[in-house]
Amino acid sequence: MRVYQTVYRLCKSHLLNNTKRLTINNFIAARTVSISSLIAQKWGTKKKHRNVALKLHLDSMADPQMEEILAPLRASVKEQGDLVRKLKAEGAPVLDVKKAVTELNARKKLLEEKELSLAPNIVTFDRAKMEDLLKRRFFFDQSFAIYGGITGQFDFGPMGCAFKANLLQAWRQFFVLEEQMLEVDCSILTPEPVLKASGHVDRFADLMVKDVGTGECFRLDHLIKAHLEKIAADKKTTDDVKTDCQDIIIKLDGMNKAEMAAVMQKYNMKSPLTGNELTEPIEFNLMFGTQIGPSGLIKGFLRPETAQGIFVNFKRLLEFNQGRLPFAAAQIGNAFRNEISPRSGLIRVREFTMAEIEHFCDPSDKSHPKFDGVRDTELLLYSACSQMDGKPAEKATIGEAVDKRLVANPTLGYFMARIQQFLVKCGVDPKRLRFRQHMANEMAHYAQDCWDAECLTSYGWIECVGCADRSAFDLTQHTQATGVRLAAEKKLSEPKTVDVIEAAPNKGVLGKTFKKDAKLITDSLAKLREKDLEEFERSLEANGAYDLVVEDAKKFTLTKEMVAVKRYQKTVHVEEIIPSVIEPSFGVGRVMYAIFEHNFKMRENDEQRTYLSLPASIAPLKCCVLPLSSNAEFVPFVKTLSAALTRVDVSHKVDDSSGSIGRRYARTDEIAIPYGITIDFDTLKEPHSVTLRERDSMAQVRIPVDDIAQVLHNLAYSKQTWSNVESKYPKFEQQESKGV
Amino acid sequence: MRVYQTVYRLCKSHLLNNTKRLTINNFIAARTVSISSLIAQKWGTKKKHRNVALKLHLDSMADPQMEEILAPLRASVKEQGDLVRKLKAEGAPVLDVKKAVTELNARKKLLEEKELSLAPNIVTFDRAKMEDLLKRRFFFDQSFAIYGGITGQFDFGPMGCAFKANLLQAWRQFFVLEEQMLEVDCSILTPEPVLKASGHVDRFADLMVKDVGTGECFRLDHLIKAHLEKIAADKKTTDDVKTDCQDIIIKLDGMNKAEMAAVMQKYNMKSPLTGNELTEPIEFNLMFGTQIGPSGLIKGFLRPETAQGIFVNFKRLLEFNQGRLPFAAAQIGNAFRNEISPRSGLIRVREFTMAEIEHFCDPSDKSHPKFDGVRDTELLLYSACSQMDGKPAEKATIGEAVDKRLVANPTLGYFMARIQQFLVKCGVDPKRLRFRQHMANEMAHYAQDCWDAECLTSYGWIECVGCADRSAFDLTQHTQATGVRLAAEKKLSEPKTVDVIEAAPNKGVLGKTFKKDAKLITDSLAKLREKDLEEFERSLEANGAYDLVVEDAKKFTLTKEMVAVKRYQKTVHVEEIIPSVIEPSFGVGRVMYAIFEHNFKMRENDEQRTYLSLPASIAPLKCCVLPLSSNAEFVPFVKTLSAALTRVDVSHKVDDSSGSIGRRYARTDEIAIPYGITIDFDTLKEPHSVTLRERDSMAQVRIPVDDIAQVLHNLAYSKQTWSNVESKYPKFEQQESKGV
Repeated sequence: MRVYQTVYRLCKSHLLNNTKRLTINNFIAARTVSISSLIAQKWGTKKKHRNVALKLHLDSMADPQMEEILAPLRASVKEQGDLVRKLKAEGAPVLDVKKAVTELNARKKLLEEKELSLAPNIVTFDRAKMEDLLKRRFFFDQSFAIYGGITGQFDFGPMGCAFKANLLQAWRQFFVLEEQMLEVDCSILTPEPVLKASGHVDRFADLMVKDVGTGECFRLDHLIKAHLEKIAADKKTTDDVKTDCQDIIIKLDGMNKAEMAAVMQKYNMKSPLTGNELTEPIEFNLMFGTQIGPSGLIKGFLRPETAQGIFVNFKRLLEFNQGRLPFAAAQIGNAFRNEISPRSGLIRVREFTMAEIEHFCDPSDKSHPKFDGVRDTELLLYSACSQMDGKPAEKATIGEAVDKRLVANPTLGYFMARIQQFLVKCGVDPKRLRFRQHMANEMAHYAQDCWDAECLTSYGWIECVGCADRSAFDLTQHTQATGVRLAAEKKLSEPKTVDVIEAAPNKGVLGKTFKKDAKLITDSLAKLREKDLEEFERSLEANGAYDLVVEDAKKFTLTKEMVAVKRYQKTVHVEEIIPSVIEPSFGVGRVMYAIFEHNFKMRENDEQRTYLSLPASIAPLKCCVLPLSSNAEFVPFVKTLSAALTRVDVSHKVDDSSGSIGRRYARTDEIAIPYGITIDFDTLKEPHSVTLRERDSMAQVRIPVDDIAQVLHNLAYSKQTWSNVESKYPKFEQQESKGV
Repeated sequence: MRVYQTVYRLCKSHLLNNTKRLTINNFIAARTVSISSLIAQKWGTKKKHRNVALKLHLDSMADPQMEEILAPLRASVKEQGDLVRKLKAEGAPVLDVKKAVTELNARKKLLEEKELSLAPNIVTFDRAKMEDLLKRRFFFDQSFAIYGGITGQFDFGPMGCAFKANLLQAWRQFFVLEEQMLEVDCSILTPEPVLKASGHVDRFADLMVKDVGTGECFRLDHLIKAHLEKIAADKKTTDDVKTDCQDIIIKLDGMNKAEMAAVMQKYNMKSPLTGNELTEPIEFNLMFGTQIGPSGLIKGFLRPETAQGIFVNFKRLLEFNQGRLPFAAAQIGNAFRNEISPRSGLIRVREFTMAEIEHFCDPSDKSHPKFDGVRDTELLLYSACSQMDGKPAEKATIGEAVDKRLVANPTLGYFMARIQQFLVKCGVDPKRLRFRQHMANEMAHYAQDCWDAECLTSYGWIECVGCADRSAFDLTQHTQATGVRLAAEKKLSEPKTVDVIEAAPNKGVLGKTFKKDAKLITDSLAKLREKDLEEFERSLEANGAYDLVVEDAKKFTLTKEMVAVKRYQKTVHVEEIIPSVIEPSFGVGRVMYAIFEHNFKMRENDEQRTYLSLPASIAPLKCCVLPLSSNAEFVPFVKTLSAALTRVDVSHKVDDSSGSIGRRYARTDEIAIPYGITIDFDTLKEPHSVTLRERDSMAQVRIPVDDIAQVLHNLAYSKQTWSNVESKYPKFEQQESKGV
């Protein structure tokens, strides 16, 4: 449906391809969404959230009853998958292949929907409850709310911001430091030519239509879906029309501009707000444009991804790495996309943080020195082939997957394993994580292989990290646009002799003849490729002259006296290669959202007591300090403890408010604080001690005051486990719940 | 000169007021700058840098000879300062005061220039050499250089990015964690109404003129300065005209639009590029504008500072803090300004990182609980009074300064001391750091007091951190714009009885009379202030009716039957206050630049061997690992060591390239690596040991391999000093320099 779907660069991860990801569940949800959700996209209107029951489906693979129900759907996908394969093998017309693929996607969607609905292990997840918690404790909330707010923009409050900062610090530690990557921090404002070369200026667009009266804009696929759902829900609609509507909705993802325009016409669609006529579909570029400098002559955009900043710095980075391959560069930073109508909270926003890695390597050697260290890591792989065959995702070690060539090369496999390790370490539930391979039709011609790390949430499987082998595409594009060769030198195993053909200008004659244009001509001659030079040679021999066309279409007639075309041989020790790029690309907001969902819990027997079980390493604060009451004798202990915790870099919150201990613990559980210290009357006695409580188990131990800071440092920085602490210190039995 | 100079919010720190700061040295430099520097601002043209000899001037205070030379200049400043005071005391016309202040500034500038030129302790600093190092080792460089580059935009390479990340992490530790501030992360794209309320839409502008033929833009003050310098340098110019030109250049800072227009006309200025006519001066807003959403109807800007994101979230933050004052919020993030012609490297850029703190407190209680902890911190204070009197900056403890009311209150003083502690910890030379107080004419009417932390660099004293008491201005502005009361409740020491006046609408009658407008009317009634209600009351009594004007200028005539104005008394336990804001605001790029200059060093007797003496805590990498040669026996030691260092979070670089150890150390010195490990043939023997070298002293010790990772962790995280390491381990005597 999106016009850029054929170009993978523009399709990647959290940036774009999410449409397809989201629709799986949206499709179900859409049946209950009224047209008002379209209207609600204007600033100032807040969306109401529905409760969603989430089902874990992985164990479904083992359930024969369920498989029986799914069998016909799987067969139907396979039938269509085989047809697509056959058409491709026969070299059928592109349009026929495209139609078959659209039908394939529709069948896949039905299968996945059914799979999710049948899953036996139901985790009842209450999205509204979680969103209430996140908003109430200001993890994040809509930006500029006192001014009515802007859809698709969010501010992170103290807890969200600390969580995000910890997540990014963990990322830096896990990827940049561990792999000694070259981290860069590049400009957000990007001049047009850069994004012209990358393809974004021409292809980074969504289809929309405008109300001819008011100028109101609608994202076309949203509009069609809402309109057809309304018709299908109408009692007066005939069964034939209903079926047609449902059929179109399923196929919407694969439709192009003309097809959607036809649907609009067939169903005579008008503006849902005014009933006015609508314009023809318009391709709306999703980049925010601006002017750099006061003249209005330098057009710029807010970058739609951070990757381009790395590519344009390739030469400097290669030089920093002393000319050697492979090396990886990384960048954490904000990117922007001007969504027509943003939805789904943190998942589809106008301003977001990305963390991207570009690993540059020799195209003929994609081995990775550390691959053996991850070889046995087990991943849930949903290969393109399984998707075509209607089969479920399968577990495999990354070693097996690379050996079988299911994953294209060891470096790509290494990063997939590392991505999984990182996500799980940060709180993603491994049972709700899979790697989905892009099917041929999702990838651009130059991409070798691409796997998305997807997390299962109440919005369905959402793509959180993309991991692609992009070959030499990006460097080639920027080389072509600038004339600056973004290439590396590779030492040959032994020197070789090569044929050289080059233009040898006679500068004296050229200067005399062309005056100030002579330099332009010699520069152009130096840029001629082998093919051009051969043509040059032929032309000189045949006609004694050659017409050189330079940049601005000026033509110069060059004779044998002015330029000779020379051929000779030389011995070379290096060859020039354009490196391949392997790109893991993280959508930070989406990863955060998945972690929120996977860690939102309710206490047994008390649905009102919700909490977030974030791992201590990324929890916003590591510890709380609670004096039992406002007794003045507790104050010096609170101060001393707080200072001691600060000294060992343990972030914490002192809560000396008046609620009971149980109530205060419930409040700190909500903001994911993993450990709590209570100062009570026993603390006042020698030897001074406090209680230490763990959030998830609510278990408590009694610890000497002198030990507590170091124990918390160890717990917060993963140097000691809770069970180790429990084994060392006496259990503290007092019930906290009675106070709640 | 800048049109927003009267409004402090728009004048603050790294954002704006830099013009004044920079001119001190620019004024000297300008004499050698040709008109071509004006032209060089277009993208694609790079500036050539001049060498600058920097002089430390602080010890000058003690030099009587120097004071003799400065005495007449000091007297001249004092004379004018006294005149300004007198005019103000007499209530002289604003224009007269303004003229006198302009003259005062000009005299101050001459004094400062002379002071700097006379300073006896000359640090020969070679800016070109430092810039060469920073560029060559890719600390930072111009963005999009392969596309010709954009002025005022820089990309940070691996070393600059790591340095920046470490600096920000140190900031977070020092301010956010230590003070338990509420850190937030807000949107960059900001809708117009927010920035209308803050004053940026109307006043955040520079003056420029355009070439009427080509549309080329020139920043007006730059243009005038360059033009007059050219005239003054011309041999044919008479002495009178020369004097006039020099006089105008000095006073340019204080000139308004009309005055500059008059200068343009007097000297008949044309476009320096084409000779074409120029337009009248235009106020060019420095914010980057864009459209949010596809309709083109929601105008937005890239935020020009991060502070507004905190103000608009005040209610949520207060609630997060359980309604209590004081508390501080903080934000690290990017901000943007569309400079007409950016210059001076990292100091004046279009895209920059800020770190801002907004400390909200009771306006009647600006004490700070930790003030006593910093009371004895000594600062170099350049008070407004000293500036008026032509006196030099003076050392004082912050305790004395607050006691004497030189610094307005303890909270402001506390932050000033903390700012100094932070800057010095991160490598700013305390001898090149001062706090300059804003003079009355630099501050907005609402600001209580404001001190800038300025660092002396080869560009003169540049403002790196602003620290201001902004009273209740920002919260008041947003309250007025939105109707949402951004206020806190303060518990009264004892309950008090207050008079209440309020409008009591008769909803039935109103509804009947005004139908759907009734709600609008009752909402408007609720917002009426005391003064309006008194007027309402009078009008009802006198005329039996009152004309209520609502938001969009609609008028409703209300009668006694519809609304009564009631007066009664009630007992209240709390009062509503609008908190005061104390704002420390860091320009991160400027702090980085000052640290670069203050830490750029040359080895004695070898000017080619330059290095950066950054403190280990913020150095990009903490350590290098150098095998003596490519001997295969060294490889396992390199691997083991690298893994051990990674485990204890010590960032490092392995350099196994072929240069001599001395040459490789010189390379790691350039990128500020504080510690270096060499693996040599003695390492292979049992017990295995390595050498450890300290960058600044180049001293080396021999350490067992098993100890090295922990020692480096301790050194990198300031848990152990180098001298402590030297005392524990045997000295290693081999000379490294012979290899260079």
